[in-house]
Amino acid sequence: MITDVLIEKIIEKQNPTCVGLDTSLDYLPEELRVGVSDFTGAAKAIFAFNRGILESVADLVPAVKVQIAYYEQYGAEGLCAFRDTLVYAREKGLIVIADAKRNDIGATASRYAAAFLGKTPTGDREISAFPSDFLTVNGYLGTDGIAPFVQEGKGDRGIFVLVKTSNPSSGELQNLRLEDGRTVYECMGDMVEAWGTDTVGSYGYSSVGAVVGATYPEEAKILRTRLPHTFFLVPGYGAQGGSAEMLSNCFDGRGLGGIVNNSRGILCAYRKLGGSFDEAARKACLAMKEDLHAVLGEICAK
Amino acid sequence: MITDVLIEKIIEKQNPTCVGLDTSLDYLPEELRVGVSDFTGAAKAIFAFNRGILESVADLVPAVKVQIAYYEQYGAEGLCAFRDTLVYAREKGLIVIADAKRNDIGATASRYAAAFLGKTPTGDREISAFPSDFLTVNGYLGTDGIAPFVQEGKGDRGIFVLVKTSNPSSGELQNLRLEDGRTVYECMGDMVEAWGTDTVGSYGYSSVGAVVGATYPEEAKILRTRLPHTFFLVPGYGAQGGSAEMLSNCFDGRGLGGIVNNSRGILCAYRKLGGSFDEAARKACLAMKEDLHAVLGEICAK
Repeated sequence: MITDVLIEKIIEKQNPTCVGLDTSLDYLPEELRVGVSDFTGAAKAIFAFNRGILESVADLVPAVKVQIAYYEQYGAEGLCAFRDTLVYAREKGLIVIADAKRNDIGATASRYAAAFLGKTPTGDREISAFPSDFLTVNGYLGTDGIAPFVQEGKGDRGIFVLVKTSNPSSGELQNLRLEDGRTVYECMGDMVEAWGTDTVGSYGYSSVGAVVGATYPEEAKILRTRLPHTFFLVPGYGAQGGSAEMLSNCFDGRGLGGIVNNSRGILCAYRKLGGSFDEAARKACLAMKEDLHAVLGEICAK
Repeated sequence: MITDVLIEKIIEKQNPTCVGLDTSLDYLPEELRVGVSDFTGAAKAIFAFNRGILESVADLVPAVKVQIAYYEQYGAEGLCAFRDTLVYAREKGLIVIADAKRNDIGATASRYAAAFLGKTPTGDREISAFPSDFLTVNGYLGTDGIAPFVQEGKGDRGIFVLVKTSNPSSGELQNLRLEDGRTVYECMGDMVEAWGTDTVGSYGYSSVGAVVGATYPEEAKILRTRLPHTFFLVPGYGAQGGSAEMLSNCFDGRGLGGIVNNSRGILCAYRKLGGSFDEAARKACLAMKEDLHAVLGEICAK
């Protein structure tokens, strides 16, 4: 079960950090950008940068999150770098989260599920387009838009559904109160908990997780209690303003229950710390591990 | 203003039909699939099929909607066919809707906006990744996740935001009632109407449209009255069960206010009607035009 595998890696490395490879050309050091004048060049430079980051931090963290928007902006060429990054991260033993926030009606969702969590029939073969362990999805369409991902994943691949997002406007819809007394994010959370029922693993968490922003600790506290079998992907730490104290509400008494993403704080650490980008990324990872450890203590399955 | 251009094409062709190029390898006639054994082959076959469809129907319809999931399942190679299809459809004078339902926090949404509605800075140049006139988006994250698309589009490119989707489960969240008496889909609709305020064109519709399923005529009726400046993209006709009568609620007294998508009913018409796929697609387009005309009458800007 994929969430068990993720949790075991978190315990082994004593680190619930996910490195966000939201790699845009403008995040790269000058010397890696020299001479880039088309999408092919951009894709090559970005993959070279990602490889450097991965080699530098793979022993420290359990997972990476790769944000597809940053690759899609460089066309099909950029998406080659996206795929190469997924493949290389898996070769380094990391759990790979494709952050694509996909959503559609059932027939179309099943194509997305094949692309990220399964294989696509092509002639007599079946081929994996963008091999990932987890995919982020948006549940606005309800159960029949989510079921294809759960079915394709069979517990061996998982999803994280947007519940309470980290951005400033997230409350405009998500915090509205329904007639039945629940907020919209609580309602979405209840659906997520239900969608995961059949895939709960040995640590008590299912393969259907939730995105819960570090920037909203009160909502995180409510959701952690309300969704006992739902593992959280927690964006918003660092650049977006979330601190270790704020996101402690995303975790259970064992220090489990969530994984915290940091993108720019690691990728662009060299601008703050100086030195090479890969060494600076490693230092930033170590600092974040310490920061989380001070709040969560030892992570232990009991 | 892009919605004005779309409306002028609808009036000129007297046809509010959008051909959905949700082209999967398994939709192609046997002879186009022979020998395909990898993503490159699949992408070539799919683009050849799309070109045939476009050549056959371009004079009949104002727009096409290209569903990216069907291309993404064939990896970066499939996305080359996606891009080639967008470019070719525009060469044929058609308005191009990229159906990708993108959504993210502001910083990331701006990358998606560049990819589909703008250009990406790459070295000293700016390059268009997936040039489209409209992009479908999901508004669950609220205003700061939508603003980058509106800003990038400047009214010359537009978006369609999911409001009431056509799938069976869409009511699970969308039809819940809020404490203030509105349903979630009405609330989303109100946000869409507000997001479009600054781009209302000469026919009274803005560049920020809404996706409203043909399968829910009661909700469509409520939304048509409630959102007077919001143009509707209407999926669900044909294969999903929506009829011309059901979707008449999406239109105003001039026969304007919406465009109706049909994907499988046109792409796979050859399986029902016999003959070549492109001729069958043309017949299906003509039949749909007649079907809509019987309900809407002459489309006229008054």
